[in-house]
Amino acid sequence: MLLHEGGWRLMRADVVVSGGRIAAVGKAGERPGKGEGEKGKRTPVLVRDCSGCLVAPGLIQAHIHLCQTLFRGLADDLRLEHWLTRRIWPLEAVHTPETVYWSAMLGAAELLLGGTTAILDMETVRHTEAAFRALQRVGLRAVAGKCLMDAHPEGAPLELAESTDTALAEAESLARRWHGAAGGRLRVCFAPRFVPSCSGPLLRAASELAELFGAQLHTHAAETIVERETVLRTTGLEEIAYLDSVGISGKRAALAHCVWVDQHEMARLARQGTNVVHCPSSNLKLGSGVARVPELLEAGCRVALGADGAACNNRLDVFAEMRLAALIQKPRLGADVLPAGRVLELATLGGARALGLEDEIGSIAVGKRADLIVLDLREPHVTPAGADPASRLVYAARASDVRDVFVDGRAVVLGHELMTAAIDEIAREAGRCAAELRRAARLA
Amino acid sequence: MLLHEGGWRLMRADVVVSGGRIAAVGKAGERPGKGEGEKGKRTPVLVRDCSGCLVAPGLIQAHIHLCQTLFRGLADDLRLEHWLTRRIWPLEAVHTPETVYWSAMLGAAELLLGGTTAILDMETVRHTEAAFRALQRVGLRAVAGKCLMDAHPEGAPLELAESTDTALAEAESLARRWHGAAGGRLRVCFAPRFVPSCSGPLLRAASELAELFGAQLHTHAAETIVERETVLRTTGLEEIAYLDSVGISGKRAALAHCVWVDQHEMARLARQGTNVVHCPSSNLKLGSGVARVPELLEAGCRVALGADGAACNNRLDVFAEMRLAALIQKPRLGADVLPAGRVLELATLGGARALGLEDEIGSIAVGKRADLIVLDLREPHVTPAGADPASRLVYAARASDVRDVFVDGRAVVLGHELMTAAIDEIAREAGRCAAELRRAARLA
Repeated sequence: MLLHEGGWRLMRADVVVSGGRIAAVGKAGERPGKGEGEKGKRTPVLVRDCSGCLVAPGLIQAHIHLCQTLFRGLADDLRLEHWLTRRIWPLEAVHTPETVYWSAMLGAAELLLGGTTAILDMETVRHTEAAFRALQRVGLRAVAGKCLMDAHPEGAPLELAESTDTALAEAESLARRWHGAAGGRLRVCFAPRFVPSCSGPLLRAASELAELFGAQLHTHAAETIVERETVLRTTGLEEIAYLDSVGISGKRAALAHCVWVDQHEMARLARQGTNVVHCPSSNLKLGSGVARVPELLEAGCRVALGADGAACNNRLDVFAEMRLAALIQKPRLGADVLPAGRVLELATLGGARALGLEDEIGSIAVGKRADLIVLDLREPHVTPAGADPASRLVYAARASDVRDVFVDGRAVVLGHELMTAAIDEIAREAGRCAAELRRAARLA
Repeated sequence: MLLHEGGWRLMRADVVVSGGRIAAVGKAGERPGKGEGEKGKRTPVLVRDCSGCLVAPGLIQAHIHLCQTLFRGLADDLRLEHWLTRRIWPLEAVHTPETVYWSAMLGAAELLLGGTTAILDMETVRHTEAAFRALQRVGLRAVAGKCLMDAHPEGAPLELAESTDTALAEAESLARRWHGAAGGRLRVCFAPRFVPSCSGPLLRAASELAELFGAQLHTHAAETIVERETVLRTTGLEEIAYLDSVGISGKRAALAHCVWVDQHEMARLARQGTNVVHCPSSNLKLGSGVARVPELLEAGCRVALGADGAACNNRLDVFAEMRLAALIQKPRLGADVLPAGRVLELATLGGARALGLEDEIGSIAVGKRADLIVLDLREPHVTPAGADPASRLVYAARASDVRDVFVDGRAVVLGHELMTAAIDEIAREAGRCAAELRRAARLA
């Protein structure tokens, strides 16, 4: 079992789960209710033998767009601005409740099967209700929000336009319905798309709603140099300072990307405890750049990881993100920067912070939610075991090594199989919906 | 089935294999000997139903060190020079025939299970015979060579030192025994480690032996700025020019890395048809840099891909290398450079050229060797199919999607299982040998 006490430490141990939480972690065989045929006071619902496997905290991705899972492979090799105007916005504009539902099911299935147990998610402008229904069914922990955009950026289709009031009213109504649903597994975030598509009043109101509901704020920031310059031109402020001025900062806020931030902005992010979500695949694939994660950490920033969407990755694979996050800094700063253990912290403790759930998830500790993954590490690519379990997870392991996944102690994946929905149905419906969206958006 | 005709093209088709080669490729159901219960003149040994799957050419990695597979996870977060002197050389120095054998078995198993059907391999100084025995057994196509080093670089253990004559005599003896063995599946290459560990006479003699045997030359070049400067200081020539002056150039030569080459050296590489082997994970993880692959291709260079060794990657996963090769160029040159189809060519046709086997492997074509992989693409992470099969393979698919693997028409992997050796035995023996090496090299 992989425990975090200062650093990562392997212990041969059992974990006892009760009421969705970790009730005890103890040396193998010593705890009641876990031994074969043993009679503890509390009969566990499920005894799962994990001998020979590695039990790790569920991995967390703090920037995901489930609504883009159906767009996988439809928007390759384009830079962010064209990617948005030629593909993503036209496709999002034709989404229906049904396509949003299956997009979320497909993405959540991929995430769970690959060991991601919790996400911070940004949906599209409409039909977010459908995404929550999918999340409720599939069993992933999610902090999700409808995309807010009331200013109309160049190239965006009219179907995505909303008035400030309509946008806020729908976000609030979603929060009333879903914040804390499914026993607390589902939560709402307020998710302005990015500064160029949001008015100041919308951003301020989103911040106030987040405060009111005790919810997170989730947006994009400083993703490309074009965005940085646009914000500077239109607001007169650097992006991080502007976001701060409208209340999008502090521990409630998770800013995806932050590729283009200078030393002053890093200091501001650190001072206020704002969460930065590093999305290395997405930043590379869209040609946005490489976020200076070691410098952000050095400045004291809170950093998490995310795959972004399948339309710009094209995986939702936390193992791919961890490995890439570690590798891409080394040519610039040396082979010893961002070692494996540090990266694994970003995908666990860092993710928990960005979701506003640091007391609930992110490590295997008594009292925390039982979000656990079990890795079967007998295949050649993870052999021999090596000296450092974090190295094994970050540099060698892959999503397909995840055997079992528990969220709130519920088995959502067992023996590499999704327990909460039929994969065949998801694949079939997703294929059908994707074809429909392509036709409706007049792509190929 | 994925065919290459100018670009990549999907065709619904059957492939007929005879005598280890592709005898016919035709529309599904039209060819004799493939239909269920059909009686062609030639009875195929195996009829494998691949409906719903993607049949692709076997993927090729042109720079691998099988002898380092046991060092996985033992040399993380170190730059090349320390990585060599503190870990790799001490570990290579204590290799025995038994540890070299299981290191090769482990690496080859990972490679085959992940869709790599052919490699260009560099072993250590001794016991290369044992690696060939493993390769003979496991069924991977390999062009492998003993590492040649007669100059003694600072920090290398004495056990790795050999005289020029001893080194060459052993290399020649290996060539006599193994070049063309296993029905041509095994071939020998001559593999000087890198300029700083090789005398001029050794390099020249290696080039002559390669010519004599019709074999490839396999070395490292321009991996780090330190190496570049060392070669310039000791030889008075830039590295690519120096290698050329001793006969390590042209189509017979495969130079791993080439991170630190300038425009003149690129032009020289292109003019002579020298193969460059791009190893993106290794170059990032050791902090060496990012090879300018788009510029190399633009200059007309022949480029292949490779994972290098498990000690600096830590995977031997061609899917990870393809995806990374595509992604890392984009922040520097734009999101549209090195699109998926181009990268897939590096891992197929480019690899075939680097192995000196462009007429034999690298695409699905009548007359070529039947090195084929079958991908089962029904899982969520490769759904929906998208518009471009190359995008699906490069950006979304992963090694675990490989269902079947054929080398020379022989089924070496079926249903994700290695057919030629027992995985449990490999993992057990590899674990035992790795522990032995760590003890002998006095690491932790």
